Amino acid sequence: MTSPQRAPGGFPVVGIIGGGQLARMCQPPAVNLALTLSVLSESADAAAALVVPSAPVGSHLDVEQVLAFAGDCDVVTFDHEHVPAEVLRALVDAGVPVHPKPEALRFAQDKLAMRERLTELGVPCPAWAKVHDEAELAGFGDRHGWPVVLKTPRGGYDGKGVRLIDTAQEAADWFARGGELLAEERVPFSRELAVLVARSPSGQAAVWPIAQTVQTDNICTEVLAPAPELDPELAARASQDALRLAGELDITGVFAVEIFEIPGADGTAPSYVVNELAMRPHNSGHWTMDGSVTSQFEQHLRAVLDLPLGDVSPRAPWTVMGNVLGGDYDELYPTYKHLLARDPGLKVHLYGKGVRPGRKIGHVNVYGDDLDALRERARHAADYLEGTVTE
Amino acid sequence: MTSPQRAPGGFPVVGIIGGGQLARMCQPPAVNLALTLSVLSESADAAAALVVPSAPVGSHLDVEQVLAFAGDCDVVTFDHEHVPAEVLRALVDAGVPVHPKPEALRFAQDKLAMRERLTELGVPCPAWAKVHDEAELAGFGDRHGWPVVLKTPRGGYDGKGVRLIDTAQEAADWFARGGELLAEERVPFSRELAVLVARSPSGQAAVWPIAQTVQTDNICTEVLAPAPELDPELAARASQDALRLAGELDITGVFAVEIFEIPGADGTAPSYVVNELAMRPHNSGHWTMDGSVTSQFEQHLRAVLDLPLGDVSPRAPWTVMGNVLGGDYDELYPTYKHLLARDPGLKVHLYGKGVRPGRKIGHVNVYGDDLDALRERARHAADYLEGTVTE
Repeated sequence: MTSPQRAPGGFPVVGIIGGGQLARMCQPPAVNLALTLSVLSESADAAAALVVPSAPVGSHLDVEQVLAFAGDCDVVTFDHEHVPAEVLRALVDAGVPVHPKPEALRFAQDKLAMRERLTELGVPCPAWAKVHDEAELAGFGDRHGWPVVLKTPRGGYDGKGVRLIDTAQEAADWFARGGELLAEERVPFSRELAVLVARSPSGQAAVWPIAQTVQTDNICTEVLAPAPELDPELAARASQDALRLAGELDITGVFAVEIFEIPGADGTAPSYVVNELAMRPHNSGHWTMDGSVTSQFEQHLRAVLDLPLGDVSPRAPWTVMGNVLGGDYDELYPTYKHLLARDPGLKVHLYGKGVRPGRKIGHVNVYGDDLDALRERARHAADYLEGTVTE
Repeated sequence: MTSPQRAPGGFPVVGIIGGGQLARMCQPPAVNLALTLSVLSESADAAAALVVPSAPVGSHLDVEQVLAFAGDCDVVTFDHEHVPAEVLRALVDAGVPVHPKPEALRFAQDKLAMRERLTELGVPCPAWAKVHDEAELAGFGDRHGWPVVLKTPRGGYDGKGVRLIDTAQEAADWFARGGELLAEERVPFSRELAVLVARSPSGQAAVWPIAQTVQTDNICTEVLAPAPELDPELAARASQDALRLAGELDITGVFAVEIFEIPGADGTAPSYVVNELAMRPHNSGHWTMDGSVTSQFEQHLRAVLDLPLGDVSPRAPWTVMGNVLGGDYDELYPTYKHLLARDPGLKVHLYGKGVRPGRKIGHVNVYGDDLDALRERARHAADYLEGTVTE
């Protein structure tokens, strides 16, 4: 394994475990800031391995490989939340600065632990319970109403590990696998929002304007920033809760709090509950790459290095992000050429991934004054790259 | 030499000859656009080699090395203008698309050829003459006034290869080396401006708002974009001339036309003359990295690939760029930390280069509404990194 090359002048190496698009998107700000990235990649053609000179292939599950990798880094962070506790522990025991820290990361890896901690802290959550069998689930459903949202505590993303259950019997297959599950009431939400926060080891924190995320088939397809017509009190409360959470859980780096907005009855003020925590740069924050003074990827690098955080102001009245999913075109380049011609202001971010149906392969950002026009442009661009519109 | 890895989907490889900061700054937009760069680098620790996975070490003077390098690329472009004509010719003969083309690049490499062509095209130039000896120089000086600006036709940059001459005798050493020199009248200019243009092989062209460049000891230290209080007619004429030049010379890629603004006598409109041509992304265009919808580096990649060009609108009323020169601090990282704390909105771009006094090692951009405040911030940041102010 060749050591990563540092920029002269005392500049550090940031190690990222996992070579997906989040690691990849750290490379542009790293170039600007003269930080060197080193990425422990799943494969030699991983998204980040295509763009970072030091991208050794190795597994995040292998303690020896991870320790060897970390030996060249000044700090280690993550592209995903799937690094096992024992690997994290070994890194900490070896004296490697790890951000977010394992103690905090646990609350993003284990949804039951997250619900317990958030409830202790008085952060709004849906009604929830730990359930071990159909009888406990039936009791929860009878108390809080059906259908129930049932979640595996670990390993879910993009709607995986989450089911809507109408009767306890439907969950028999999951209970048959053993272990505990998380039952949650189905919240009558009006929309989904995301609070994006950065916090550094020395405790400096910053929160971007809250964004609205639009999901289609449980995958985020669109983000509007800032969230249109958001109740200012809800925004302030949710931002304060996210900052408080950051402090209480000692979260470091960029993280996202996904929340449900719940309409107030009869014109009263809306409220919210926390849906999920993600302790890494997040899809809901991709708008910041073109829409904020400091992008979430630059901020994450600053935060994990305990550098002063950057300005999180938006750069335009509205920024809209559209996720690009794999679709009909394997040969994306000709399609993308046409798209660049159609919209010279479109900011395209592709991940260097092969197309598979439904796979996130990139996103687009547009910004400006007219939200409806921006949504149309982002939607069109994403659909065009996916192949669902052809002109 | 390992081949550069392409992104799947038909995405191309852009080869850049020379591994300096201009090649380095192409990497962030290349990441976003899923374009792969391959950089023929002077050394393994060249600015671009630190951030691009494919950065073979080789010389731009060696035809075999350049041809082997180009074999993996879909198009070849340049970090600098010093590639010899015979190497360029060999690339073209081998069927490699080269942008800018050798026929155009000649006018950036040879200032005499540039003056001849511009004069033919009716583009405003200072009075000039090709001079072979002291007698011819003396004749020119007597006709157009002393001092005379004397230039070597080739190889100059940042004030090198340019002298202000008070008497013909002073130039004896240059004439002793043989060959022809370019004599130019010393223009009574009020300030220096730069017209930044991009043009693609299929002829699409775009011009950014004209910027003002501020020089200190013949090195650009500050750029203001757009140029404050610029006469709109002069701006339109200079932009049109630059676009016309692009077409007539068949220039491809990003290029800069450096011009002198000449105040009108007694309140009449100002005029301008062309000082230099640079056929590559240019220091005067670094403001576009944070100040324009499309940066000059993204645009250069689009142009040389004949992709549709991006929007060149400014993103803020004013953007100010400050060049960071090497100074007192070898260990730049601690200094930079303090600076990030002082100004959270500062956009820092460092080149990964070791500090040498006077060497360009980075730049900063700031943008906003208040030009004077922006200039102060950019100036302070550059001075602080250089070590000439300490708080």
